Amino acid sequence: MRIARFSIDGNVAFGAVEGEGTGDPAGLVLDIIKGIPYTDFELSGTKVPLSKVRLLPPVLPNKVVAIGRNYAEHAAELGNEVPEVPVAFFKPTTSVIGSGDAIEYPSFSEELHHEAELAVVIGRLCREVPRERVKDVIFGYTCANDVTARDAQKREKQWARAKGFDTSCPLGPWVETDLDPADLTIQCTVNGEQRQLGRTSDMIRSIEDLVVHITEAMTLLPGDVILTGTPAGVGPLNVGDEVAVTIEGIGTLTNKVIKRG
Amino acid sequence: MRIARFSIDGNVAFGAVEGEGTGDPAGLVLDIIKGIPYTDFELSGTKVPLSKVRLLPPVLPNKVVAIGRNYAEHAAELGNEVPEVPVAFFKPTTSVIGSGDAIEYPSFSEELHHEAELAVVIGRLCREVPRERVKDVIFGYTCANDVTARDAQKREKQWARAKGFDTSCPLGPWVETDLDPADLTIQCTVNGEQRQLGRTSDMIRSIEDLVVHITEAMTLLPGDVILTGTPAGVGPLNVGDEVAVTIEGIGTLTNKVIKRG
Repeated sequence: MRIARFSIDGNVAFGAVEGEGTGDPAGLVLDIIKGIPYTDFELSGTKVPLSKVRLLPPVLPNKVVAIGRNYAEHAAELGNEVPEVPVAFFKPTTSVIGSGDAIEYPSFSEELHHEAELAVVIGRLCREVPRERVKDVIFGYTCANDVTARDAQKREKQWARAKGFDTSCPLGPWVETDLDPADLTIQCTVNGEQRQLGRTSDMIRSIEDLVVHITEAMTLLPGDVILTGTPAGVGPLNVGDEVAVTIEGIGTLTNKVIKRG
Repeated sequence: MRIARFSIDGNVAFGAVEGEGTGDPAGLVLDIIKGIPYTDFELSGTKVPLSKVRLLPPVLPNKVVAIGRNYAEHAAELGNEVPEVPVAFFKPTTSVIGSGDAIEYPSFSEELHHEAELAVVIGRLCREVPRERVKDVIFGYTCANDVTARDAQKREKQWARAKGFDTSCPLGPWVETDLDPADLTIQCTVNGEQRQLGRTSDMIRSIEDLVVHITEAMTLLPGDVILTGTPAGVGPLNVGDEVAVTIEGIGTLTNKVIKRG
């Protein structure tokens, strides 16, 4: 099931997405969910066309834990070795936006990059999750763009600003709850031109590895998000660009880059 | 004014601390605050002795932004240079505990360190704060311990686990709203023995510098916290230790180290 979060006439709700399509709202309909979708929930039967709503980030994470250098070709393209231990960092909730929202080019950078990534959405409070229970704590998957101020990332030893500025974490368009994430294509286009193309099967550390590694240290809460790293092909974003992340079986996350107002 | 957050009989409230003392509850009384203290608020006149309540973290941050290597002697003691740009990283909300709560020694580390720090509590939603307006966005100050798994910090290029594990961010005992932070002593003791002693006047980057630097990139929300770096003298914590951070004009934040259960 595809679960979106949206606003319509000032009200915010979750809805199940019905119909065919990867992000183009034509023909898609939302069946409004009663309550919060992380536990058992009911569909209300009240339906609204996707074209009439504003999509919001499909989850409200307490935290976003992101993983760097999890695809060998991407580590190599930036001149980095494959790390011996996963490189884990946080993106703050103030960086999260939804599909259709604008990425604001920050004033402290002149080298903004796209990084298309598979995002894992956690469904249950959990810590020290054993490998064989990882599937039980996952609610679903969505597309993410780990937008990065590459110049600031090079200058600053820790990446709070380079990867944590406002609007640097587009998530969406919705969460797909029925999906095997083992071997999916991840694609990133800028103004329709392909920039990144990879497969989740090329991750150095699997989703199981990452959940075990992260929850060894910290509690994850329902709605928390893990970004699993980006494949090769990262490159610049400029004001006016439209960047789209498409993951097989999920859909397309689209954002325009604007000047910060 | 000193503002604490506490629970009593299952209810959570903010209260203004009345009486003399730095953390020892004897003689201190809480006047319960109506509502949330970040804006204009009223004291209810209903008072409870501090000895009858459980202190909670004095704020519920949306995010904690911490600064590394902001005292020259501390950078030197770990063999690091003073960074050209502030080293900014996040501690997640799941790491925040209050005074009196236990620090749980994490299973992935064998070298836990204390780091006593002055914490700045933000009072207003803000971004791109000009230097001369920094004082307007600050609600007050509290004590923090940026508890660090030093071995993991050395192994892992980004510090999400090393400085973000559960219980790694003690804050408290309360927020002091009337304080000039320019030249205060910061002290850390372990089992009553002094380990760290420094003055906030030795910070490499001032609080103004840090707020400007952070808000150039991201929005801060009421209750968000900035940890301003630790003076020299960091060292090990062991199970059974009692670690106390005392800052002149604020009070004492005390936590016991226990084995994670």
